[in-house]
Amino acid sequence: MKAIVFDSTSQAARLEVDRPVPVPAPGEVRLRVLLAGICNTDLEVLRGYAQFQGVMGHEFVGIVDQAEDPALVGQRVAAEINLPCLACETCRASRYSLCPHRTALGIRGRDGALADYVCVPARNLHPLPDALPDEAAVFVEPLAAACEILEQVPIRPTDRVIVLGDGKLGLLIAQVLALTGCALTVVGRHREKLDLLAARGIATQLGDRELAQKADLVVECTGRAEGFGQARQMVRAGGTLVLKSTYHGAVDVDLSSLVVDEIHLVGSRCGPFPAAIRLLSQGLVDVAPLIEAVYCLDEGLAALEHAGRKGALKVLVRP
Amino acid sequence: MKAIVFDSTSQAARLEVDRPVPVPAPGEVRLRVLLAGICNTDLEVLRGYAQFQGVMGHEFVGIVDQAEDPALVGQRVAAEINLPCLACETCRASRYSLCPHRTALGIRGRDGALADYVCVPARNLHPLPDALPDEAAVFVEPLAAACEILEQVPIRPTDRVIVLGDGKLGLLIAQVLALTGCALTVVGRHREKLDLLAARGIATQLGDRELAQKADLVVECTGRAEGFGQARQMVRAGGTLVLKSTYHGAVDVDLSSLVVDEIHLVGSRCGPFPAAIRLLSQGLVDVAPLIEAVYCLDEGLAALEHAGRKGALKVLVRP
Repeated sequence: MKAIVFDSTSQAARLEVDRPVPVPAPGEVRLRVLLAGICNTDLEVLRGYAQFQGVMGHEFVGIVDQAEDPALVGQRVAAEINLPCLACETCRASRYSLCPHRTALGIRGRDGALADYVCVPARNLHPLPDALPDEAAVFVEPLAAACEILEQVPIRPTDRVIVLGDGKLGLLIAQVLALTGCALTVVGRHREKLDLLAARGIATQLGDRELAQKADLVVECTGRAEGFGQARQMVRAGGTLVLKSTYHGAVDVDLSSLVVDEIHLVGSRCGPFPAAIRLLSQGLVDVAPLIEAVYCLDEGLAALEHAGRKGALKVLVRP
Repeated sequence: MKAIVFDSTSQAARLEVDRPVPVPAPGEVRLRVLLAGICNTDLEVLRGYAQFQGVMGHEFVGIVDQAEDPALVGQRVAAEINLPCLACETCRASRYSLCPHRTALGIRGRDGALADYVCVPARNLHPLPDALPDEAAVFVEPLAAACEILEQVPIRPTDRVIVLGDGKLGLLIAQVLALTGCALTVVGRHREKLDLLAARGIATQLGDRELAQKADLVVECTGRAEGFGQARQMVRAGGTLVLKSTYHGAVDVDLSSLVVDEIHLVGSRCGPFPAAIRLLSQGLVDVAPLIEAVYCLDEGLAALEHAGRKGALKVLVRP
C-alpha cells in the first residue's frame, strides 16, 4: 500500500508505495482510509515531536475492511487516536486518553492514517451517520478536542469569553463555544479567517487592537509560546485561562500573579468523539469553509508542505 | 500610640512610639488591637513587596473602640484585610477581594495592625464568639486562606491529596483538607513540624523520600519557586495543582506538558472568614501548637526578626 512515513533517522517524511498492508492484531480492525486531515501535531512530528517513526496522520475517516465481528465490516467510522494500556491505574479510573503507557496513531509508537489502510482496536471506533460526508467527518477528532473545553469548564451565557488564535483549531473552538450563548470574541491575526466566523455572527477582532474589557475565560490556541502572555493579560482576576497550544520549550510564567489574581489555568487536549459527531450531524458547526485543499495520497508530501505554510487552513489527503 | 512602621525609603521597619491614634473615616470603625500575627507576606513587605509604606500587619484580633453604630463598640472582632473600591466591575460582581483598586491592611496602601489601634470599614468586621480565645482568633485570616482551596476545588473522600510544604500555612491547609476525609499526605522538610500533624492522625513524609503514587490534587505552599517543579511531578495527568506560594520572580514552566497532561492549575489567595471562625470554634482545627512565640509591641522588631528565622512557626505580637 501507499503511506506517508516519517523516518526519525533522516528527520524527513517520504512516500512509500509498497509498504505491507497492516494485519489487525486480536481485538483490532483494519480500516480502509477514505479521507485524512493534517493538523499542527503532524507538523510538530516533522520537527521531531515525540521521536515518532512510522506512518503519519491521526485525523481520518475510514471504512472497516477486516474485523473479528463481521457486523463491523463495511461500516464507515471515525476512530479515537489514543491506544491506552487498559491495565494501569489511570485506565482503571477510565482516564484512557491520559494513560501514561498509551500509544497514539501517527504520534506515539503506532502507525497512523496517512495511508491506504490503518489498524485500530475495535473499541476505538465510532460509527458515522450516513448523511455525514467524509469532508465533515474528517474533522471529528479536532472538533472533539474543541468540545473538551466544555467538558472541563462550565461556560454560561453570562460569561465573557475570548478565543485567542484564528488557526484551524481556533475556528473550531470558536464555533463550539458560541453555542453556549456566551459573549464571545475571537482575537486573531488574519482578517480573512476571522471573516469566516463573522459570517456566522461571531464577534471578531484583529489582535493589535486593544480590548475593551477583560474576559471571564480565555482560550489560548495560537500555537505559539508568546500567546500565553497575551492571553494572561486578557483574563480577569478570578477568571479561567484554557491552554490548547503545544509547542517546544518552556515559558517564563509569573506564578505568584496567578495566586494573587486567583487565576485558573486549564490544560486541554483530546475530547469526546460522540459529541463532535453529533455537532457535525446537526449542522451546529460548519467545517466546509475550513478546507483549504485536498490532495491525493500520491501527493501526500506536497500536502504536508502546503499544511505547513503560514496561515494555511485544513489540508486533506484522499488515498 | 505605638506601631511597627515600614519605611520604603530606608527599606526597614522601625518602632514608632508617638504615632497619632488613627481617626476612623465615615463608614469605618477604630479597633484596639488585642493580638496580631506575623505571616510570610509581612516578611515579603520587609523585602519591598508592593512598595508598601506604613504600619505593618494584617492578621489580628481587635475590640471595637469607636464606631458610628454604638452597638458595635466593645465587640471583639476579626477583620477582613481587603478594602475594595465597591464601584468597579469586579466589585459589582461581588468579587471584592480581587478588586484591582483595593487597598489591603499593612500590605497595599493602608495602615495595618501591628499597632495599638487600626481603622477598618465596619463592613469588614466579623464578630467573634466569646469562647474563642485571642490566641486562636488571630489565625482566622490565614485559616480563611486555607479554606479558600475548598471554595475553589471540590475535594472528595476518594481523592489522593498532597500538601507540599510544612510552613505555617501548610499546617493550616493540611488540617482543613484532612476534614474532607481525603487520602492526605503532607510532604515537608521538618520532622518536628510534620509530627504536629502526625499527632492528629495526618500522614506525613519527609520531602526527600520518593512518593509511591501521584496525587489527584497537590497544594503547593512551600513559599519557594522550586516548589512548583516538585509539586508538578507529584500530580497525576488530569489532576489539579493548587498554588498558594507567592514569591518574587518568574518560573520556567513547560506549559505544553500542562496541555498534554490536562493539568488544572489553580491560584488561591484570600478566603472566607466566617468558615474559618466556625472551624476554630468547633475545634476542628488546632492552632495552639503553631504558636512559636508571643512578643509585646515594644519588641515588635524582635518579633519580625524571629518570624524571619528559617523554619519559624507563628510569632504573635500583643500591644
